[in-house]
Amino acid sequence: MNLPFLTPDLHPEFLLRISKIRKGMKEGQAILVAGNTNIYYTSGCLFRGYVFIPFEGETLFFVIRPMDVEAAESVIFIHKPEQIASILSDRNVKDIKSLGLEMDTLSYNEVERLAKAFPGVETFDASGILREARMVKTDYEIEKMRRDGMHQAAVYHAVPHLYKEDMTDVEFQIEIERALRREGCLGFVRTAGKLMEINLGSVISGANADAPSPYDFSMGGAGTDPSLPVGADGSIMHPGCCVMVDMNGTFNGYQTDMTRVWRIGEIPELAYKAHQCSRDILRLLEEKGVPGVECSELYHLAASLVKERGLEDYFMGHRQHASFIGHGVGIELNEQPVLSPRSKQRLLENMTIAIEPKFVIPKVGAVGVENTYRVTQKGLENLTVFPEEIEEI
Amino acid sequence: MNLPFLTPDLHPEFLLRISKIRKGMKEGQAILVAGNTNIYYTSGCLFRGYVFIPFEGETLFFVIRPMDVEAAESVIFIHKPEQIASILSDRNVKDIKSLGLEMDTLSYNEVERLAKAFPGVETFDASGILREARMVKTDYEIEKMRRDGMHQAAVYHAVPHLYKEDMTDVEFQIEIERALRREGCLGFVRTAGKLMEINLGSVISGANADAPSPYDFSMGGAGTDPSLPVGADGSIMHPGCCVMVDMNGTFNGYQTDMTRVWRIGEIPELAYKAHQCSRDILRLLEEKGVPGVECSELYHLAASLVKERGLEDYFMGHRQHASFIGHGVGIELNEQPVLSPRSKQRLLENMTIAIEPKFVIPKVGAVGVENTYRVTQKGLENLTVFPEEIEEI
Repeated sequence: MNLPFLTPDLHPEFLLRISKIRKGMKEGQAILVAGNTNIYYTSGCLFRGYVFIPFEGETLFFVIRPMDVEAAESVIFIHKPEQIASILSDRNVKDIKSLGLEMDTLSYNEVERLAKAFPGVETFDASGILREARMVKTDYEIEKMRRDGMHQAAVYHAVPHLYKEDMTDVEFQIEIERALRREGCLGFVRTAGKLMEINLGSVISGANADAPSPYDFSMGGAGTDPSLPVGADGSIMHPGCCVMVDMNGTFNGYQTDMTRVWRIGEIPELAYKAHQCSRDILRLLEEKGVPGVECSELYHLAASLVKERGLEDYFMGHRQHASFIGHGVGIELNEQPVLSPRSKQRLLENMTIAIEPKFVIPKVGAVGVENTYRVTQKGLENLTVFPEEIEEI
Repeated sequence: MNLPFLTPDLHPEFLLRISKIRKGMKEGQAILVAGNTNIYYTSGCLFRGYVFIPFEGETLFFVIRPMDVEAAESVIFIHKPEQIASILSDRNVKDIKSLGLEMDTLSYNEVERLAKAFPGVETFDASGILREARMVKTDYEIEKMRRDGMHQAAVYHAVPHLYKEDMTDVEFQIEIERALRREGCLGFVRTAGKLMEINLGSVISGANADAPSPYDFSMGGAGTDPSLPVGADGSIMHPGCCVMVDMNGTFNGYQTDMTRVWRIGEIPELAYKAHQCSRDILRLLEEKGVPGVECSELYHLAASLVKERGLEDYFMGHRQHASFIGHGVGIELNEQPVLSPRSKQRLLENMTIAIEPKFVIPKVGAVGVENTYRVTQKGLENLTVFPEEIEEI
């Protein structure tokens, strides 16, 4: 199902994606895509260069590297972006009044450079248009994510067999990483922005679940080094603690996000109670999560149930609380929409969202389930099917 | 040797780093650091927030997350950057005429937001000042990198024992990844910019060494998926090929960069000849690499030796050639200086640079050695000591 390199114009999937992007554009506008995520989204491959999307007419792929590859008609090899304007003019692409750039992700200097390369043309921020096009997936993309979910579940089936007594959380994570990689995980997490740095995921247990992190992940963990303060901290996973496994699900350019919890020995009743609450939230949202519903409403449904059960102190953290219970997922781990208290975004059919109502039980660890869902007319379809109970590891 | 969290002002190391940054600043200027790499550089830990460095006076750490941590006098908790200007004013920090921001790395929108948060203050690009401060390492930083090199070498000693007949390059890489992680590798590569995406490194062999990549790495490789086109491609490593191992050396916030080559069975004379040329280049540059020498001169010394031996067609790639033979390394894999044909940068004592004269031998693989060096008055000191011969795996 991988596409041949640099022949995106031959594949109807990419015409569809371009048409989705154009829905956010106006006459006289064009977008010049330069960020890796959107280069991949619009071409099906990753190259160094630019994708030029006019409101009307042919999409053009300006490639700096790699050179020396077979390419389609719409591919033009260049050395630097300053060449693009005159090439467009030679090709009779005119009347571009306003050029969209990814101002949320490209560096300040890159945006300035690209803007200067189109003298006399206004610029606008195209980040939102591209994010919105990407947040509703095509069938092709959903199929990729469905396969991610199956691979991820296959590895999670192996997880309890990778545990050995007196293992540290890091040692355990390393064995899960190896199993993921052997299943085809690419070993790389594509995220948006600077607030999500991580290795292949997070295994947290015991008191470490309550260590606050600077990042935008739902859970913290101290990590093993101040340069990467998130996740496993190298402590031994002791009887009486929960082990939360939230490891990477990137097996192609897309990914699923999935969390399960195991226990070592006996854990307190509070942990079971909170875990059940998480599962009940998921069941509720699976039903209520239909096109049209506001994301804040889903958040408040969850928060109400948490309150009803008297679990607010533990919800989405204990010392530090995350302010969302779910997020879009796709090429990037953190896509739109966000399920937060004030989000006015509404669900649309074929959005893919990870929902992760989690609880931190001090000294015990974190509990809760995370699944990645597709939004359908009938509610949420789970792409990460795997038992949700807390089993002994 | 890890510092306590958020007490950077208690440690002389950070006063030294701030004084290095100030050497690039002028009176009336201040720098507001916001990018992860420079946050870590100036504080010794990673937090969500900002480091305010005035030309004179106290450096202040504005922290958004994590909250609820013990902090030093100079740490101020905030919710958003718009609070900073009035807090500075309350603290009697005045006369800031010009504010430096990391325009090479922060997004366009983040720079615009920060600039607006300081009304009436000019902004300037502080990227170069910070890069230049970072490129000459302190003793503390070199000690961290020295330990990286020892850990990385310890894993490379294990490399040949991880190989099994008929393994694919990906399977081999996975075993090396596990060994690295078990040695303490953080599993995360910090790079600058969008042109270096990779998992834990690159194992390339056979024809795959000649596959061009869009990224700024010295070598290519097709990768296993169009979303991450670099490195191992999943092919079986066959007798008659070379296996180049260029795997991650991040064991703390710093890293070393190191490449070695093994062979499977007999390889052609040309491969040995090119490998010897790489080693001869390193010996030459180890001697010539003293403070004051221009980076372009080191490049041309290498290129001359390559030409003398008639190996130009294979140098730094075959179908696609990289245009450098070395680069600074530290917190980020790609730091300053760059050893390229036109670089006017001059070596300074205690720069740390990876030098990687490599050759691609079509169908056989890549050969050459990469070491990370410290620049001393007597030449280059190798931080990645490990045998350089091509041994059978």
